[in-house]
Amino acid sequence: MTAPGKPLEFRDHSKPVLPPGGILLETIASEVCGTDVHLHDGHLDSVPWPIIPGHVSCGRVVEVSGHPRDPFGDEIKAGDVVTFYDVYGQCGSCYSCLVAKQETRCPHRRVYGITTTATDGLLGGWSTHIELRPGVRTLKLRNGASVEDFMGGGCGLPTGFSAVERGGVVFGDSVVVQGAGPVGQSAAIFARLCGAGRVLMIGGPKDRIEAARARGIDEAIDIGEMRDPGERRRWVLDQTQGRGADLVIEATGNPAAVREALEFVRDGGRVVVVGQYTDAGDIGLSPHRHINRKHVTLLGSWGYEFRHLYLSLGGLERTRERFDWAGFVTREYRLDQAEAALGDMRNQSVLKALIRP
Amino acid sequence: MTAPGKPLEFRDHSKPVLPPGGILLETIASEVCGTDVHLHDGHLDSVPWPIIPGHVSCGRVVEVSGHPRDPFGDEIKAGDVVTFYDVYGQCGSCYSCLVAKQETRCPHRRVYGITTTATDGLLGGWSTHIELRPGVRTLKLRNGASVEDFMGGGCGLPTGFSAVERGGVVFGDSVVVQGAGPVGQSAAIFARLCGAGRVLMIGGPKDRIEAARARGIDEAIDIGEMRDPGERRRWVLDQTQGRGADLVIEATGNPAAVREALEFVRDGGRVVVVGQYTDAGDIGLSPHRHINRKHVTLLGSWGYEFRHLYLSLGGLERTRERFDWAGFVTREYRLDQAEAALGDMRNQSVLKALIRP
Amino acid sequence: MTAPGKPLEFRDHSKPVLPPGGILLETIASEVCGTDVHLHDGHLDSVPWPIIPGHVSCGRVVEVSGHPRDPFGDEIKAGDVVTFYDVYGQCGSCYSCLVAKQETRCPHRRVYGITTTATDGLLGGWSTHIELRPGVRTLKLRNGASVEDFMGGGCGLPTGFSAVERGGVVFGDSVVVQGAGPVGQSAAIFARLCGAGRVLMIGGPKDRIEAARARGIDEAIDIGEMRDPGERRRWVLDQTQGRGADLVIEATGNPAAVREALEFVRDGGRVVVVGQYTDAGDIGLSPHRHINRKHVTLLGSWGYEFRHLYLSLGGLERTRERFDWAGFVTREYRLDQAEAALGDMRNQSVLKALIRP
Amino acid sequence: MTAPGKPLEFRDHSKPVLPPGGILLETIASEVCGTDVHLHDGHLDSVPWPIIPGHVSCGRVVEVSGHPRDPFGDEIKAGDVVTFYDVYGQCGSCYSCLVAKQETRCPHRRVYGITTTATDGLLGGWSTHIELRPGVRTLKLRNGASVEDFMGGGCGLPTGFSAVERGGVVFGDSVVVQGAGPVGQSAAIFARLCGAGRVLMIGGPKDRIEAARARGIDEAIDIGEMRDPGERRRWVLDQTQGRGADLVIEATGNPAAVREALEFVRDGGRVVVVGQYTDAGDIGLSPHRHINRKHVTLLGSWGYEFRHLYLSLGGLERTRERFDWAGFVTREYRLDQAEAALGDMRNQSVLKALIRP
Repeated sequence: MTAPGKPLEFRDHSKPVLPPGGILLETIASEVCGTDVHLHDGHLDSVPWPIIPGHVSCGRVVEVSGHPRDPFGDEIKAGDVVTFYDVYGQCGSCYSCLVAKQETRCPHRRVYGITTTATDGLLGGWSTHIELRPGVRTLKLRNGASVEDFMGGGCGLPTGFSAVERGGVVFGDSVVVQGAGPVGQSAAIFARLCGAGRVLMIGGPKDRIEAARARGIDEAIDIGEMRDPGERRRWVLDQTQGRGADLVIEATGNPAAVREALEFVRDGGRVVVVGQYTDAGDIGLSPHRHINRKHVTLLGSWGYEFRHLYLSLGGLERTRERFDWAGFVTREYRLDQAEAALGDMRNQSVLKALIRP
Repeated sequence: MTAPGKPLEFRDHSKPVLPPGGILLETIASEVCGTDVHLHDGHLDSVPWPIIPGHVSCGRVVEVSGHPRDPFGDEIKAGDVVTFYDVYGQCGSCYSCLVAKQETRCPHRRVYGITTTATDGLLGGWSTHIELRPGVRTLKLRNGASVEDFMGGGCGLPTGFSAVERGGVVFGDSVVVQGAGPVGQSAAIFARLCGAGRVLMIGGPKDRIEAARARGIDEAIDIGEMRDPGERRRWVLDQTQGRGADLVIEATGNPAAVREALEFVRDGGRVVVVGQYTDAGDIGLSPHRHINRKHVTLLGSWGYEFRHLYLSLGGLERTRERFDWAGFVTREYRLDQAEAALGDMRNQSVLKALIRP
Repeated sequence: MTAPGKPLEFRDHSKPVLPPGGILLETIASEVCGTDVHLHDGHLDSVPWPIIPGHVSCGRVVEVSGHPRDPFGDEIKAGDVVTFYDVYGQCGSCYSCLVAKQETRCPHRRVYGITTTATDGLLGGWSTHIELRPGVRTLKLRNGASVEDFMGGGCGLPTGFSAVERGGVVFGDSVVVQGAGPVGQSAAIFARLCGAGRVLMIGGPKDRIEAARARGIDEAIDIGEMRDPGERRRWVLDQTQGRGADLVIEATGNPAAVREALEFVRDGGRVVVVGQYTDAGDIGLSPHRHINRKHVTLLGSWGYEFRHLYLSLGGLERTRERFDWAGFVTREYRLDQAEAALGDMRNQSVLKALIRP
Repeated sequence: MTAPGKPLEFRDHSKPVLPPGGILLETIASEVCGTDVHLHDGHLDSVPWPIIPGHVSCGRVVEVSGHPRDPFGDEIKAGDVVTFYDVYGQCGSCYSCLVAKQETRCPHRRVYGITTTATDGLLGGWSTHIELRPGVRTLKLRNGASVEDFMGGGCGLPTGFSAVERGGVVFGDSVVVQGAGPVGQSAAIFARLCGAGRVLMIGGPKDRIEAARARGIDEAIDIGEMRDPGERRRWVLDQTQGRGADLVIEATGNPAAVREALEFVRDGGRVVVVGQYTDAGDIGLSPHRHINRKHVTLLGSWGYEFRHLYLSLGGLERTRERFDWAGFVTREYRLDQAEAALGDMRNQSVLKALIRP
């Protein structure tokens, strides 16, 4: 990607010289996610064009320099199938890292495929190879998890999990997930795995709702068939003994959903906002009715930490069959079909699209 | 008060017959708070007119029925000077009380002076006597705390404290309090007592700012002298090493302050909304910029529990001299001056007004 | 039960006169739990002999006085099949209830079948009928849960759940449960339902270990076949990548298990002690090695609140088939076989014993 | 120090060659703390003899290599008076660092003056100069804090603060601190600053108790004058309305104090163990009476993070006058008097001893 709206270009890169601790991957699959669409649509600021898109990927190790290890001490060797934490460069030394302990707000963090420029190297997954710099946190796929399983979760896997953790499921909670895309699907599954008593989903289109139902979500409605917000609110109240949901997780990208979340949640409940990665406009809300009188807790959820990737990958490995993670992948594309992949994601005709270089 | 906007009326009530466990107080002082102004201005719904206003009060026990005790087992006797938790009637049996453990959201709670009707008895403080029903939680003033000390805090004492507790001060936090009324003053003091490193206030009018400064608030600015929101934001950044505040407590009643709070707070910080007790309109905000990307925690704070009254009263007793709580009382009124008291509160010419029947 | 060690006696009681709000149950089943054995063995102090044992029970409503309701507002009527929270009489007015918010430590609480005397009424389940005093929290069995399902969990259901909640499972945690009795089985299941990644059990005898394995516990060892504590510790380390468990839940009744728990847990991990309901002696431990240097969190877990009963019953209703709760009941006894039931519980030849009057 | 029990030796070191980012300090003062006594008495394992003792120190920058910065971005320059976080080398990549987020349990951490050998460089404060390796977290003394102020707190400053944070003071809590040494004094002050309602101390000798009283501790007793544990327990109950303390912080080094703490604490309260840095033997306790029935939370507190040093230093800067931190220093010693300093610490004839090279 060279600039918003411009056709994608294919460029040849010379084989990188690995610094000590570096790893070279042959790409097996890389994700096409909503952020890639936003990138191409020019919704993100400060992108260091040109970039190689693809922030979450899997690959086979083809070369290592020295003896790189995973965070648990296992050596990474040629032939291993791995993924990696797409964020690197946290300074470990600023207020966010050291005092607030909120490393996702470190100003020095950089992200493969989003905030790294192609002129610096093979730092994105839509490429035949990916260069892992020293210190990039690498994880082998284990316990029978396949590339398809992991990529079925993709970046939605840790994003949804971290939103659920931020919301703090209490055993038995009723949870409404707004949005049926990869983040919403993952949030719904992890809400269940963390003890939710009743998981509801409102989203679309229809095939995504079917995908959720097939994975045991208690009730899921296609927003295309329930267009009236008042009706949706009544539905949530009906499903929650008239109280509203204990926890609402917004994963839509539509600002209006945030106000709606505040009308779905019970007094004293929690709302997590994880779907607003770009600025799609303001909403109006009443500080009295939506916040103060409701005694609500409203939580922004930005990014995820390495531990969210590690823990959610573990969860995926334990539930490969139960939740058919691999089944979320609805289409695969060659590198030269990447424009088509972006288009299909934009119009939501696929749930999860992969680039297979 | 018989209806919104109507002149106050004085009515004679017959002496109540106390049920077992009941207590009759001779009123020493009762508060005129912002809620009373809102009541009279018709901003609250479902008020059971006529009412006797005055939800937080002190009195001298003149009669008891049986052997009522305070929550710690001490017997309440004639002559004791007491205050009481103005909320009663929580059912102890609903989802809010039993499962969510958020008794302030119990639908059965009633409040002296606000949601109790005068036809049910002397259930408000703007009266020569107050009737405490069995089970109303009564506390003696102890450790040298005078009626003036306690009423200097008034309902702002537990309201401000509960907001601070909800915000969860981390030792050393920078805290911005928006609003210089009784809730704001109390919140600023309790933020300091709970370990805040730097307490800042933005409010008005000028004499309230002076009152805060006199109590050791680190920096307080008169909003009348800094009318530009952008300038206020720059001031907060300047005061917090460019990061924004760790915690912002909104205690203003002005909806616009909530959006401003979200611009004052640092990434990953917390905002408590405690000033929006009536619906004064909607605000616009960006779910992306103000919530999701900020990874912010926004907390509504409605009402307070008995433990907030008990703990904040203990704090007041320990800091009578340090914070000159009694000094917050800027004017006292006889019962027949109650209209004037409402007027003075409405135009903020007093910080804390008392009715002395 | 008239005194420790004495034979059980059968006594006739006259039919109780229900006060308003009272409920009379015909007993369907009542539990024989470890506490009943301890009662009969004289391990509990201050028991108001004679008592009717049986603290957790199910019954059919045969008479109501007035219109009693469950905590969610549903009226309780003749014919309903219900259970109830065995603890009543919390004052709602003491430091524990009001300030510390730890109602299980309220000095006024009383427990059916344990701290209530038979001279006060039918306040225990080993009886043809049970009298529910006004305010006793009553729950209907719903969503297809049978008496056998609920009694399969019995008092271990909320006790195990509250221990898990106290321990605070983090998604993916490795959890060791010590003890394979009803509390241990319940704790293991709820640890899984709350997101544990790996649930291990150490206990006995063999059939209890089989029962755990049949319910999907990852690994369970029969302590009778691994008698050496050092070997057990090595086994736990082997199962947890050499780190020790994130969370250990002690549910054995054997004091030595607490020291062992502190050797099973990883640095910085958590240990919940829920198995020490009577004083079976002191243990020795090193404050340096077991606590300080380990940076451990050690949590006593006494009793359970109504919300634990309510939430764990909901969990049981949702997982009737997955965990075969009813299958934990290994033998049923008539009232006149109660001595035999105590004997079988004492020698652990049954997992869960019921009295069926 | 070359080995346990051996006389201290003075050795000449050549001036270190600083790697990029390194800093050379001229030592102004270094601490003699309890750990140094334990080192010399041979109570610590795995010490890489010989070592230069002195883990917490202040110095003046005499040389820098490159442009080292403090964690907030300020450049460190020659002439600056600084202290530094004595722990370095956390890997940032292990389970403790990345998943559990408990960096004090990272197996790769090393500590100046304790776990670093003199053959590796000037890595301890009992030396004319100290070498700060790249990445050692360096803090300038600010806001008027002097070397004497900071060293008056010494390593007890962050250790006591982290223990208080671990204990989680609730506003109004009654807190008992066991031990009147530097950690206990610091814990008592921070408990107050974090909102404790009543701070009590039990320790000795007499002059340390006087030091605590002079700083406003509510009640402090000299353990030499109250030798009977039963009497101490009654005293704590008397001071806490018969309930026991909400929070007990053990900072003594005496294992028996841990059992006593469990008898001082109220049901449902918290105990922090921060005084057991070496193994001084086992204690006996009853899992039933001391842990389970008490519903207690017992928390080991090992080491401190950089943020504890940073936040406690900020607290010290704000309270220099109120708590007379500098006044804790009771004696200063030249390098050649270090043996005498160890002796005085061992027999507790000084509260805080400094080496002034």
